[in-house]
Order: sequence, then C-alpha cells, then structure tokens
Amino acid sequence: MENQKTSITAKQDRQEIFIVREFDATPDLVFQAHTQPELLVQWMGLENHSMEIPIFENKNLGAWRFIHSDENGNNYRFCGVIHETEFAKRIIRTFEFEGLPERGHVSLEFLNFEALQDGRTRLTTQIIFKSIEDRNGMVESGMEYGVIDSYNKLDKLLSKNN
Amino acid sequence: MENQKTSITAKQDRQEIFIVREFDATPDLVFQAHTQPELLVQWMGLENHSMEIPIFENKNLGAWRFIHSDENGNNYRFCGVIHETEFAKRIIRTFEFEGLPERGHVSLEFLNFEALQDGRTRLTTQIIFKSIEDRNGMVESGMEYGVIDSYNKLDKLLSKNN
Repeated sequence: MENQKTSITAKQDRQEIFIVREFDATPDLVFQAHTQPELLVQWMGLENHSMEIPIFENKNLGAWRFIHSDENGNNYRFCGVIHETEFAKRIIRTFEFEGLPERGHVSLEFLNFEALQDGRTRLTTQIIFKSIEDRNGMVESGMEYGVIDSYNKLDKLLSKNN
Repeated sequence: MENQKTSITAKQDRQEIFIVREFDATPDLVFQAHTQPELLVQWMGLENHSMEIPIFENKNLGAWRFIHSDENGNNYRFCGVIHETEFAKRIIRTFEFEGLPERGHVSLEFLNFEALQDGRTRLTTQIIFKSIEDRNGMVESGMEYGVIDSYNKLDKLLSKNN
C-alpha cells in the first residue's frame, strides 16, 4: 500500500533526517510498541538479528541501551538518554552507536505520534546530527534497510495486537 | 585580551551554533567549574541574576535542572539529560528552556575542553537545534550577552582558584 511505505528524507547541506511512516494502529499501540521492552524486541532491528534491552527507563530523564546481535554473534550496542516521553504523543532522546571508532557522535531524535482517521497513526521521526558527515554516515550505513525491515515487523506485531 | 574574547558563530542555513572561548586555567579547573553546582551558581547566568540547581547528576545518563531568577523574582527554568561526561574532556547533554510557549524545542550541546600551552584551556561548545528557526530564536533571545557575562564571571572565579 502506498500509505504504508516508509519515507526517508535527507536534504543536502542539512544535518538531519526525517522518517515518516503510517501504521494501521492507534497512537496508543504504536507508542507502546516503542516503549515496552517486551514489544520492542519483537520488531526493532534487521530481520535476522536478535535484540536485548539491558536498560530501558521509560520516563523523562531516563536512560536506555539496546544490543542487537547477528547470526554470527556480533553485537551492535546503542545507548542514550530520554529527555522527554509523553504517552502516545512524543519521545525526545539521544542516540549513539557505541561501535564507532570514536565516541561522541551523538544524535538527537524526535519521535512524533500523530493520530489519523480510522484509528491509524503517522509516526514522524526527526534525527539531528553533530555534522552533515555524521548524517551521511548514518544514511550510508544502510540504516534505511534497518528502518524498513523494522517497521514491516512492527506492522505484523500491531496487526496481532489490534 | 584578544584571546580572552568569546567567539559565537551561527552560519546561515545551518541549525547549529559554535561558541569558542579561552580561559587562563587548566581543563581540570574549567571542567570542575562546569560540573560542581557550588561553582556553577557563582558564574552561570546574567550579572544580576541568581541561580539554583535543584538537580545535577554529574554522570553519564544523568539529569540536570537550572533555575535562574532575576531581581523581580521571575524564574527561568532549564533542564536536560547528560548523555556523556568525561572529566576535563567533554560533556554531551540535552538542553531545553522550559519557559517557551510549547515544549519540545530541545537542543543538544557538545562541550569540548582542550588543553592549550601554559595551562590554558579552549572551550568549544557546539549546540545543534531542531530547526534553523529554533537556532535563530536562541540567537535573537540575547543568549550572546548571557554567554559573555557568564564567561567573564567564570574568568574571575578561575583567577581566585588558580
């Protein structure tokens, strides 16, 4: 379906990315899938990866850490802090891939959950980066596949829970 | 002194600001002045404002809140989370002015403490914003005066402790 597709926009000379995706589920459900570890592990990450969540403080000024593992046992660690979380509306949090050659390439994510007609949701994620190079590095890392794979898995999870 | 001046750069069409300032004190001291509440309240903010620090968790994934008060008793509240803090090197934290008409205009700050010759320090602060409009709003709010005032007070504090 056209309106199920994921749109990823990274304008030249800007240090940000916008990702827009609609889901056939209410903002309550889509938000819960983003903030309940037992749901997150079922959809976030590539198709053949597994996921662990050692820390997830779902509150303002809380911390989080995700570990994705591939079939060969390689680990990919990510961490950040939650500046603000508002049920079914918004999450603002920092994000860092801990596997980079140097630390400090931190980005800030704004997730907005918008109610559409017929119980559907538009999720808009804006990510702002320390530099255009960091932004381009993220785009070139293949994040697009990760996002599309993840959201397709999330569709399936939401259709089970609806 | 030429090298004591504060340089503030906000390029057109970018959603960031760079602030560069040198201090006649070591990175250890300049960092401590940024991370010890009893020192922070002595220099941060405008000349005729007072400051309270209800929360300051000086650690990775910690939280902070500052309240500045003017002579008329008006309060200006700011809050955020600390993504990373590394002694005498770096602080990465979110920042929000809680007095805006709507919440969510959060920025991300990168403070780098660089050792110079003769026990001096160059502090480079990069702030990235949700939008160019948010960046311009910050510049037009008079933040320049606040930064220059604060750093002049910090000079005095550091010269006492040296």
